[in-house]
Amino acid sequence: MNSFSRTDIKRVVNQALKEDIGRGDITTECLISRDKKMTAVIITKEPGVICGLDIAGLVFKTLDKRIKFISLVRDGAQIGSGRQIAKISGPAKGILSAERVALNFLSLLSGIATRTQAFVKKTKPSKVKILDTRKTIPGLRGLEKYAVKAGGGFNHRFGLDDMFLIKENHIDIAGLKDIKERLKKGRFLKIKLEAEARNLSEFKDVLCFKPDIIMLDNMTPKNIRQVVKLKNKLSLDIKIEASGNINIDNIAAYASTGIDFISLGTLTKDIDALDFSLEIT
Amino acid sequence: MNSFSRTDIKRVVNQALKEDIGRGDITTECLISRDKKMTAVIITKEPGVICGLDIAGLVFKTLDKRIKFISLVRDGAQIGSGRQIAKISGPAKGILSAERVALNFLSLLSGIATRTQAFVKKTKPSKVKILDTRKTIPGLRGLEKYAVKAGGGFNHRFGLDDMFLIKENHIDIAGLKDIKERLKKGRFLKIKLEAEARNLSEFKDVLCFKPDIIMLDNMTPKNIRQVVKLKNKLSLDIKIEASGNINIDNIAAYASTGIDFISLGTLTKDIDALDFSLEIT
Amino acid sequence: MNSFSRTDIKRVVNQALKEDIGRGDITTECLISRDKKMTAVIITKEPGVICGLDIAGLVFKTLDKRIKFISLVRDGAQIGSGRQIAKISGPAKGILSAERVALNFLSLLSGIATRTQAFVKKTKPSKVKILDTRKTIPGLRGLEKYAVKAGGGFNHRFGLDDMFLIKENHIDIAGLKDIKERLKKGRFLKIKLEAEARNLSEFKDVLCFKPDIIMLDNMTPKNIRQVVKLKNKLSLDIKIEASGNINIDNIAAYASTGIDFISLGTLTKDIDALDFSLEIT
Amino acid sequence: MNSFSRTDIKRVVNQALKEDIGRGDITTECLISRDKKMTAVIITKEPGVICGLDIAGLVFKTLDKRIKFISLVRDGAQIGSGRQIAKISGPAKGILSAERVALNFLSLLSGIATRTQAFVKKTKPSKVKILDTRKTIPGLRGLEKYAVKAGGGFNHRFGLDDMFLIKENHIDIAGLKDIKERLKKGRFLKIKLEAEARNLSEFKDVLCFKPDIIMLDNMTPKNIRQVVKLKNKLSLDIKIEASGNINIDNIAAYASTGIDFISLGTLTKDIDALDFSLEIT
Amino acid sequence: MNSFSRTDIKRVVNQALKEDIGRGDITTECLISRDKKMTAVIITKEPGVICGLDIAGLVFKTLDKRIKFISLVRDGAQIGSGRQIAKISGPAKGILSAERVALNFLSLLSGIATRTQAFVKKTKPSKVKILDTRKTIPGLRGLEKYAVKAGGGFNHRFGLDDMFLIKENHIDIAGLKDIKERLKKGRFLKIKLEAEARNLSEFKDVLCFKPDIIMLDNMTPKNIRQVVKLKNKLSLDIKIEASGNINIDNIAAYASTGIDFISLGTLTKDIDALDFSLEIT
Amino acid sequence: MNSFSRTDIKRVVNQALKEDIGRGDITTECLISRDKKMTAVIITKEPGVICGLDIAGLVFKTLDKRIKFISLVRDGAQIGSGRQIAKISGPAKGILSAERVALNFLSLLSGIATRTQAFVKKTKPSKVKILDTRKTIPGLRGLEKYAVKAGGGFNHRFGLDDMFLIKENHIDIAGLKDIKERLKKGRFLKIKLEAEARNLSEFKDVLCFKPDIIMLDNMTPKNIRQVVKLKNKLSLDIKIEASGNINIDNIAAYASTGIDFISLGTLTKDIDALDFSLEIT
Repeated sequence: MNSFSRTDIKRVVNQALKEDIGRGDITTECLISRDKKMTAVIITKEPGVICGLDIAGLVFKTLDKRIKFISLVRDGAQIGSGRQIAKISGPAKGILSAERVALNFLSLLSGIATRTQAFVKKTKPSKVKILDTRKTIPGLRGLEKYAVKAGGGFNHRFGLDDMFLIKENHIDIAGLKDIKERLKKGRFLKIKLEAEARNLSEFKDVLCFKPDIIMLDNMTPKNIRQVVKLKNKLSLDIKIEASGNINIDNIAAYASTGIDFISLGTLTKDIDALDFSLEIT
Repeated sequence: MNSFSRTDIKRVVNQALKEDIGRGDITTECLISRDKKMTAVIITKEPGVICGLDIAGLVFKTLDKRIKFISLVRDGAQIGSGRQIAKISGPAKGILSAERVALNFLSLLSGIATRTQAFVKKTKPSKVKILDTRKTIPGLRGLEKYAVKAGGGFNHRFGLDDMFLIKENHIDIAGLKDIKERLKKGRFLKIKLEAEARNLSEFKDVLCFKPDIIMLDNMTPKNIRQVVKLKNKLSLDIKIEASGNINIDNIAAYASTGIDFISLGTLTKDIDALDFSLEIT
Repeated sequence: MNSFSRTDIKRVVNQALKEDIGRGDITTECLISRDKKMTAVIITKEPGVICGLDIAGLVFKTLDKRIKFISLVRDGAQIGSGRQIAKISGPAKGILSAERVALNFLSLLSGIATRTQAFVKKTKPSKVKILDTRKTIPGLRGLEKYAVKAGGGFNHRFGLDDMFLIKENHIDIAGLKDIKERLKKGRFLKIKLEAEARNLSEFKDVLCFKPDIIMLDNMTPKNIRQVVKLKNKLSLDIKIEASGNINIDNIAAYASTGIDFISLGTLTKDIDALDFSLEIT
Repeated sequence: MNSFSRTDIKRVVNQALKEDIGRGDITTECLISRDKKMTAVIITKEPGVICGLDIAGLVFKTLDKRIKFISLVRDGAQIGSGRQIAKISGPAKGILSAERVALNFLSLLSGIATRTQAFVKKTKPSKVKILDTRKTIPGLRGLEKYAVKAGGGFNHRFGLDDMFLIKENHIDIAGLKDIKERLKKGRFLKIKLEAEARNLSEFKDVLCFKPDIIMLDNMTPKNIRQVVKLKNKLSLDIKIEASGNINIDNIAAYASTGIDFISLGTLTKDIDALDFSLEIT
Repeated sequence: MNSFSRTDIKRVVNQALKEDIGRGDITTECLISRDKKMTAVIITKEPGVICGLDIAGLVFKTLDKRIKFISLVRDGAQIGSGRQIAKISGPAKGILSAERVALNFLSLLSGIATRTQAFVKKTKPSKVKILDTRKTIPGLRGLEKYAVKAGGGFNHRFGLDDMFLIKENHIDIAGLKDIKERLKKGRFLKIKLEAEARNLSEFKDVLCFKPDIIMLDNMTPKNIRQVVKLKNKLSLDIKIEASGNINIDNIAAYASTGIDFISLGTLTKDIDALDFSLEIT
Repeated sequence: MNSFSRTDIKRVVNQALKEDIGRGDITTECLISRDKKMTAVIITKEPGVICGLDIAGLVFKTLDKRIKFISLVRDGAQIGSGRQIAKISGPAKGILSAERVALNFLSLLSGIATRTQAFVKKTKPSKVKILDTRKTIPGLRGLEKYAVKAGGGFNHRFGLDDMFLIKENHIDIAGLKDIKERLKKGRFLKIKLEAEARNLSEFKDVLCFKPDIIMLDNMTPKNIRQVVKLKNKLSLDIKIEASGNINIDNIAAYASTGIDFISLGTLTKDIDALDFSLEIT
């Protein structure tokens, strides 16, 4: 499960279990005997791209390490409705207490992977890559970005520390000239630099930062084509990213402009949870 | 901000900031001088029910306690598009570094409050109460349930520890008779008990648990009416809740059956983030 | 070990070990070779109700997972003096370093269970149930409430979040009328409500809150009988709890009044630690 | 508040509040308006030695830093029944939510200080010092040892790391000769060494460890006098401590033997919580 | 204090204080009265580049927020011996208890800044930039890298997550061809890529990865010149870094080869702590 | 690994790994397949005293518990250059990701052990013991003190809590007389007391504290001999420690004065990391 360190996943799983269980699953503790065993399957209730099986397994095992969890498909697989995707067996108390949290992770991540895949498909046959953003659900960014990859997307920066990204707010506050000066002294040498531009004029302005990537913010496909044209004319070794007001209906138009990346906040901030159920077998 | 302890909010805010900032906001640290001040407003980009202003303020203050954050509306207010909802002033570095995390909380919670309100409106003029569920985003349940209340909904149990809820899985595994026995000995005396039923026959079965509430799972409005009729005939002091397959289009039919509660997973597992922007003033 | 989540027990055990061991058990580290093995038993030094065997075992295993701990009796068992209750074997260093912390847990919890049982016996043959309170030792409430159950008692609420309990202070500050209004809007629908009353008049007052339980605070058995009489006359579906000034000598008089519960702070705030020793075999 | 680092007190207070408040004080949140102010006093309900005022104040301030807490007496003061020991004023919500936890700390620590003082008085006019032990309530040792000092006692070691203490178990497992060898190599040069002896013969044995202190375990006053006599005859620069089977009735006999210390597990493992109440003024 | 998030500094400071103070500064607690005030200065005992004044101030303030700490110079200043660099005033207990930890941070960081500056000076007048590495003291990387900047150096990557760096071990295990394939699919689009080469042949090999930077490992200045020549001939837009066997005596030879960066493990793994003292004024 | 509790080592290792890996080892995750196995050895690149093998092993196992780590020498062994000291085998991903952190611990601790041994050798054939100080790297004191012992040194106090140490600052602030009074009341009975003196006169002064040890601060060997002479003449049962301005060149002169201990800040504040490499086999 790359792009998210093992330790953090454990923390997220522990907090989710703690949040749900609180002072104890009083129903299960009262009703189910400690020795009772059970077997169950997780079943899709609608079609989609599966994501989060490892973390679902970890939820069960965190509650009781004797629980066995066997994935029947891989993260990233597109699966129809009514299909078994995992088998679970072991102590009934642990399985019942962990069920909701495990399904909550699966539903969230599969929902993201499914939405991402829908956008990715719309951009074919262009070579444009679909990127996520920092518009994520607080505390779950690493997992969401993992789900974006499971759906065929790529990851933009993970946070404020792994890339320079100069936005309009920075330029408004510090000024183009001051920024140029400060970049000379303080720029991390081993990290890429991206700059935002809202039109052709700003695009020309930010070239002075020697960016690796320029993000075109809220521009129309038509105006984006002009930028691409200029870039090619000047033989600039710069990648172009489009962002803002792009949706499932108009993304194909953006994808055809010759840009390199389209970044979409909706991939990780809007959620259509994919529905699953756990059934006793 | 009831239903979520202050300490936990601080932890959630700290983790979200840590997740975003990582080893430091390298762009802002490099470009913006330490002494630079700025003022800004948060503006709605679409209409909806606002929720999360306190937590947004806390995000800014956590990064730099000198930042001032003034809410211009209250959580729960229904606001149109293009309206100012908060003013922010103070050190530019802190404001810029905190912006994304603050907006992510606002967008998420306002999205939930907005969706909840839509469902609540559909149930008028019945007296039925709209409830959330445990189908929540891992780690954020308390905040989500707070947003449900801001949207006019009510909270179902917060976790596995604050209510007995006997589901079919419990009955399948332990059996009606065994459960009755165990409840006598182990039931927490100060906590309510709810039981699930999928049809009239199961409804009658679970009466032996002396439940405070019975949840009718995946039943049609027509069948629900039969249950309500029986309940009234027997003068049972039991609340009735409906759940499963209820959506914005059919909820009015459910609301008219005479039940007490409708619980909806969609309130907290599906998200249409409400869009905001931070603008320099 | 219900009513206390596994994770919290681990935290409590870790903190207790850390508190005792600090920078290391310098005596044992210096004197005992790493390979040395030993076997030992835990022996009662006075009669009582045993409680805390699982947690004692966890203490040893936390320090060295190779230590074997076998309980010879179950939590809740009434045991005479000089009896073996557990066998321990494994690396001598770990056993010696963990001994004191393990015995401290056992002594504390068995002391609570023993005291609880003494009170429970005094209430026979009435059906009244003995409850604990929130007057607990900071940080150990979950374990203490577990010990109360081992001694035959029942648990009152675990904290401020799993039940409404309206006390005189609330009424003094907010007023009966205001409380009634606020309950309508804010009451959690799935949680029971209890109210305190110090005399018959207050008992009548708090009926307006529609409580599930009424706690009679510091009332005499005689006055309590009046309340019970009124309750029966009005056919109120309300449980009655007595609290305050009840001790081992007068509890029988309270138990005979027809009430449902007696709650006792002394169960968890006063401790007569039960004495154990670990002996090498 | 020496003998307990500030950070740890904060942790203990936070955990106690979290344990009590859980997901929120639902009663107070619902019934008391955010702006409501109140004033109150803490009153003794029985005579005793007060201890824990600072920590009680910290409990209130942790919940709401606007609460004012003024101690009217000092920790260690002996106070009669029905006396005011602290004044509290500020937001009613915070005061009501923190009340139980604050009183729980006060009751526990004052109970310990009161018991300690009773033992200390019995040893007058001898110069013997009363010491606590490691038989403490898990997680609260530092606070308990602080209360022992408030009651006029002294602190034995805080844990396994701040002193060598060679017990019979060490000798049984490693042997006198092996221990002597190991002490030469591994003994921390800056830390005192104590050894246990159960009779005169063992007392002579452990002299080979060159101890700073010898603890006489479970010996009668008569036998202890023999040891003291031998010590004086040999002009040994060693302190003598008695421990085991010493109670409030026989402690005077032990105190008169000429020993230096008496250590008592009961000071910190048995608790008679001192009773307080918070009253609105 | 960029390149290290505020939260982490707090954690590091808290742990250092906890490590030193443990269960309490028993000497100061016993000897110094709570009300005692003092003023003091921190004085250099040898010349060097000062670094860590903010963190030293934070150490004092963490222990007692009433302590005032005024820096008399800025981090990065080159200062002679016997000079005052900070003034401290406030409660004597807190100042004395925090002194050692504060000076430990100052000595460590100033030692690093001083060593870095020595290397930087040797590379003038070339434009080569001196970089640190991941050979750091566990747990203190962010602070060490901050000190490198104070001494005039630049920061290489902060960890395994903010840059691709393909080492010989990767190539040995996965093979050039396999790596090329995997890079196509998995490469993070917004992150730079560096590759290691030990000779001219390997330099040519790794060009296939399209690296932003190539690190020449353990090569002589002579061989490095050949690489630079080839690079220029091919007009490669690649930065060149030298590493391995470079010390204060030979660094000038490396700096003159036309490369861009020299990275030095010694900056952060070898420490000559700069000596300071705190003197009462 | 005595003098450092297991729990703390785990925390230090976890933080070091987290610091290095951050959001993930993106190179290894991308390039190396999950199933790939490898074997490697750790080799010395210069002669020295090895220290930290257990912690290096723990680093690898923390990342992937399937990794096998076999130490070929023991901590404290003096080893030449180019020698294998450990074998590692298991999943390549984990080994490569953990390599740098594991080597960083080994280099640091072996550097300390090597330096300590050099000082110890210079003091032969005197019986003086070499001690460390509290001048340590923040957060790593326990490990550094362990390395001092591996190099043949002994440990001075671990922190401010395990010994009284009265310094000039204490005397300057509180005064000799006041300190004497306070010691009577507050001195922990089970903990040694050391006092600092800068000359013969101060040596005589501090005798009134009845110290177990007196530290001679910054005195010449000649003056130290005078102190030793006086001590012998008065038959004082006090240990003598020298500290300040002692280095590898003059330590022999100090060692020959008849004192008991020499304490050296340089052992733990100055680091010459010992160089190791991990080589695939």
